[in-house]
Amino acid sequence: MNFQLTSTDSRSSARAGILRTGHGDIPTPIFMPVGTAGSVKAVHQRELVNDIHAEIILGNTYHLYLRPGIELLEKAGGLHQFIGWNKSILTDSGGYQVYSLGANRKITEEGVVFKSHIDGSKHTFTPEGVMDIQRSIGADIMMAFDECTPYPCEYNYAKESMHLTHRWLKRCVDRVSGTEPKYGYKQALFPIVQGSVYKDLRVQSAEFIAAQDQPGNAIGGLSVGEPHEDMYAMTSLVCGILPKEKPRYLMGVGTPENILECISLGIDMFDCVMPTRNARNGMLFTSEGIINIRNEKWKDDLTPIDALLGGYVSATHSKAYLRHLIISKEILGAQIASIHNLTFYLWLVKEARKQIIEGTFTGWKDTMVEKVSRRL
Amino acid sequence: MNFQLTSTDSRSSARAGILRTGHGDIPTPIFMPVGTAGSVKAVHQRELVNDIHAEIILGNTYHLYLRPGIELLEKAGGLHQFIGWNKSILTDSGGYQVYSLGANRKITEEGVVFKSHIDGSKHTFTPEGVMDIQRSIGADIMMAFDECTPYPCEYNYAKESMHLTHRWLKRCVDRVSGTEPKYGYKQALFPIVQGSVYKDLRVQSAEFIAAQDQPGNAIGGLSVGEPHEDMYAMTSLVCGILPKEKPRYLMGVGTPENILECISLGIDMFDCVMPTRNARNGMLFTSEGIINIRNEKWKDDLTPIDALLGGYVSATHSKAYLRHLIISKEILGAQIASIHNLTFYLWLVKEARKQIIEGTFTGWKDTMVEKVSRRL
Repeated sequence: MNFQLTSTDSRSSARAGILRTGHGDIPTPIFMPVGTAGSVKAVHQRELVNDIHAEIILGNTYHLYLRPGIELLEKAGGLHQFIGWNKSILTDSGGYQVYSLGANRKITEEGVVFKSHIDGSKHTFTPEGVMDIQRSIGADIMMAFDECTPYPCEYNYAKESMHLTHRWLKRCVDRVSGTEPKYGYKQALFPIVQGSVYKDLRVQSAEFIAAQDQPGNAIGGLSVGEPHEDMYAMTSLVCGILPKEKPRYLMGVGTPENILECISLGIDMFDCVMPTRNARNGMLFTSEGIINIRNEKWKDDLTPIDALLGGYVSATHSKAYLRHLIISKEILGAQIASIHNLTFYLWLVKEARKQIIEGTFTGWKDTMVEKVSRRL
Repeated sequence: MNFQLTSTDSRSSARAGILRTGHGDIPTPIFMPVGTAGSVKAVHQRELVNDIHAEIILGNTYHLYLRPGIELLEKAGGLHQFIGWNKSILTDSGGYQVYSLGANRKITEEGVVFKSHIDGSKHTFTPEGVMDIQRSIGADIMMAFDECTPYPCEYNYAKESMHLTHRWLKRCVDRVSGTEPKYGYKQALFPIVQGSVYKDLRVQSAEFIAAQDQPGNAIGGLSVGEPHEDMYAMTSLVCGILPKEKPRYLMGVGTPENILECISLGIDMFDCVMPTRNARNGMLFTSEGIINIRNEKWKDDLTPIDALLGGYVSATHSKAYLRHLIISKEILGAQIASIHNLTFYLWLVKEARKQIIEGTFTGWKDTMVEKVSRRL
């Protein structure tokens, strides 16, 4: 994997670049649709390519490990082959999912013992084990095994947790450097900065992570309930420390507004379930603002969902038709809304990239933040 | 609308033809995917065209009348425009759905008073009203308003019901001939033969229906729980009476085996929810037999769902991947299984047509019936 900066914005920390993996070139900033257990929910792989123009998707190690399981993924020749996806894949480490299990997991120095949400069976994730799993999945980018702290989080807990994440990182780095990829292409490891909303911890963690000299770096533990101001402050602080020449991935973020703001702070990669999860509930993100398609006001609106985006789904189907499908609980409603929202997210980062390259990013960003966050 | 017979089989009553509507030519025998409320469940319209090669879909008058409602459909310029479907549409008359409401409907000479399954509101369907609704929907083929008798059904009830259906048919014919299409293309009316499983009633009804001299004719009240032998006997009897030069539509049928047998008895058109409904539960119809994809035996099977059919969905995705999606309750599982099953149904009728034209239908049919009905 390598990363090449194409342009940097003079009035902000925004950057445009190209991230190269064994499965192609990814223009940055980029948004990665979340393909939890081998499927971006309600979206076909060919729609990710043809309609959404996705370049990389995310898989969840926790889910894939439980189902379909590592043995089958290896037999298939990795996740790309199993699901029929020829572009890049990033896998998370399972840290966030395991943390979400609450009472059903126990964290020790060695790793995490947890109970499956499917059948209650007991499993252990260690830094080494999670690296092996991601090798078997065949992710182009593998995430380090970390502990994701909740919000709010006591200072002392955040500090101890950060140190645990750092010790686990050493074990992840050792395991990756001591093993080979299974399917003939390189797999990069991204370590994760933690430290909750405490500046001194974030500085300390960012310096530690930067010192590992891995191909890219991530920021975790944000977008977990803290005020947006804290998210932006921590992101800005950390981006000032992480090396400029490597890609920066802000995990689990966020709304279109969050994404634009964090691009301006120096982030290159994003993922979030929001565009697909909210789509299934009828919330649409458009170039003109946010639409709750269930509202009566869209009942007779025969105009396209978002003509500006173009493309079959967003420019052909009307708001009234999509509303009818969502209200009638037709699966096609979830399909169209999900394709639309992801098309919009990918359009937004592509447009941001263009504006960065043309030197017009900051003004455009200020206008767009207002547009994309208003409720129509 | 017109119908042209291309070939007739010498060893059975099977026929191949072309049905022409204002929205294109439909090769027969044909299967019509069911698009209940303006969507074939879990299938995108472009997938109906590109993957499934559907030429005509079915809409349910009862569902469309309740949601999105006739006013919106008229504003959109009809159902074709509303859902973005440029090929043909046939609408049922609501008779079957209303009959399924059981205690929530009352049948009188005038029509049926029923309560909406959505909000309990009270509505009345009359033969005239249902013709007006189908005019507003803009169906290329409109079905007469009938009473669909249950199975088993007392002889006297079946007889009285048949006469009511015949009296209603007269009112449907009058209404259609006294009104104009709303969207510039012709709309054909198909009357429906009833009479339960009683030979004398079926003969009487078929003669009455044939005498109306409408552009096509349908057989209703079958596939409601009666033995297959009764279904075939009634179909054969009625096909012997309905005019040869007009298309014959057997409503709500059926399994691949039923379809092949009824093609050989002289049926040209079919519809059934089975391929989509069963797909969502993991039952796949393939050229080699029936698969319950939830079974453990498919867990590691990385071969395509049905390589013989070709096409992206059936020939690319593996049984193991589809099983994983269905077991994990991923929407994409329902999507892939639904596209596959409909692709298979359309492949089957297309193949039947080819065999009829080539004069090899009967032998092929006997082999295929065995293949498609076995459980793998």
